[in-house]
Amino acid sequence: MNEHELLQSIYNTTTTHAGITIAPGDDMGEMQIGSERILCAVDQLIVGRHVTQDVSPEIIGRKAIARCFSDIAAMAAIPVGSLMTACVPAKTSNQWCEALFLGATKVAEQWGGPIFGGDISCSEGPALFTVTAIASPPECGAITRRGAQAGDYLCVTGELGNSIAGHHLTFTPRIGQAQELLEVLGDNLHSMIDISDGLGQDAAHLASNELQMVIDTQLLPLRTGATVQGAIADGEDYELLFTSAALPPTHLATVIGSVQEGGNKAVTTAGEVISTCGWNHQCP
Amino acid sequence: MNEHELLQSIYNTTTTHAGITIAPGDDMGEMQIGSERILCAVDQLIVGRHVTQDVSPEIIGRKAIARCFSDIAAMAAIPVGSLMTACVPAKTSNQWCEALFLGATKVAEQWGGPIFGGDISCSEGPALFTVTAIASPPECGAITRRGAQAGDYLCVTGELGNSIAGHHLTFTPRIGQAQELLEVLGDNLHSMIDISDGLGQDAAHLASNELQMVIDTQLLPLRTGATVQGAIADGEDYELLFTSAALPPTHLATVIGSVQEGGNKAVTTAGEVISTCGWNHQCP
Repeated sequence: MNEHELLQSIYNTTTTHAGITIAPGDDMGEMQIGSERILCAVDQLIVGRHVTQDVSPEIIGRKAIARCFSDIAAMAAIPVGSLMTACVPAKTSNQWCEALFLGATKVAEQWGGPIFGGDISCSEGPALFTVTAIASPPECGAITRRGAQAGDYLCVTGELGNSIAGHHLTFTPRIGQAQELLEVLGDNLHSMIDISDGLGQDAAHLASNELQMVIDTQLLPLRTGATVQGAIADGEDYELLFTSAALPPTHLATVIGSVQEGGNKAVTTAGEVISTCGWNHQCP
Repeated sequence: MNEHELLQSIYNTTTTHAGITIAPGDDMGEMQIGSERILCAVDQLIVGRHVTQDVSPEIIGRKAIARCFSDIAAMAAIPVGSLMTACVPAKTSNQWCEALFLGATKVAEQWGGPIFGGDISCSEGPALFTVTAIASPPECGAITRRGAQAGDYLCVTGELGNSIAGHHLTFTPRIGQAQELLEVLGDNLHSMIDISDGLGQDAAHLASNELQMVIDTQLLPLRTGATVQGAIADGEDYELLFTSAALPPTHLATVIGSVQEGGNKAVTTAGEVISTCGWNHQCP
């Protein structure tokens, strides 16, 4: 089973619906409810896959919220609330679960999306947590993956690569930075995504039939201990990757390339296709 | 680990938040977003626990949606949309997953809450699906578990018990019936819940420090093959249990008891306490 292919196949079968203003396949879906638009995303965290068994419950709870709230940042949206489920082995102590929910509750409130519902169950499988994030779009409307224009700068917040050394457990979703970018760049902010699967794959998600993302690997802001290859393929950076017709302030983001005519891929200036670099895929 | 105790313990630690208009612990949580109130609930379905391995993927997908949408009925709310996640063993075929999502998509749209987001992952555990349901409250506000008054009739839609024989796979959430009840009973509809854990336990959730639910077991509408004991404790009926100051139309519901002064429990007219009858608990 390939997760991305399967999701795409499923989304292709869902009929369009009048109330859905951003269809499945972006960082969040969006619906019109009365006079308001509501953005929603759901994400899963599996112990043994997204965190190792030895990570403290507080940090696991924090990461479960942070991963999903990174989708809020990717739409330049404002957190409103969240829901959380747990499915844990029956032998799990109440104390461990309580510590985990406490870690989640703390950051969810701090970041403006308090937990207001949930569910707990048991199974023989690994501990698994889902977070549903609910957000409001900015006044100008959510920034989606679809909107890049030829000639845009391709930019990234923070640093890339070697997230496994610790960043993936301690990162703060770039919600504030997304708001700042929107304020500074305005209409010039054309498209955005958060880097979870890896720069190569996620950059390709900003491409279209007519446009490709061209990355100058010499410009990549490397995290301590990261290689260029790692910055392209490691994933779990949870940084914002966006295209803009105007240069972003240097304290907020680094220009790493540009949007050029071409089609449906991410490439390096050396011509290497990196669209498949990252989670669940091998690089060429 | 006791799921109900743990959830209660977690909810007790969450601080109240200005935007939350119905706190965790009811069938759905509610938030004020701009000028709208939005209800949300999340529910998990685990293969091997909530359905057996041999159930068809279409029916599993249908039940995952139906379970969660039953919470919408319990608040007399109107479905708006939904999200769905899957975590399945790596060996699972795309075909099985697609059939499952098709079963889910079909009823979600039919019942007015189309799927507009999701996530797919793999683990070594049993297949697990979560559904997030999003709904709008009725004009008069959502009907919660808190609102029973001494002298109310205690009423139930449909039939109870022996759901395991098939009803738990084929039931339709009582969304339409809840709307009808609200229309007919108006302000007399005081409190409501859906019966998922079992009549005994769920009736106790409508009780308060001053009020108890008194059930005449001779009045219970038994499903084919059900015993009185099963009607009280089997669970997974997904019928509406509500208290009303006026008699409901007989085609919509059956009166099975009344709300009386007492405290925090469900009892039979013979005096037997049945508050613990149902899922995860033994009857006395």
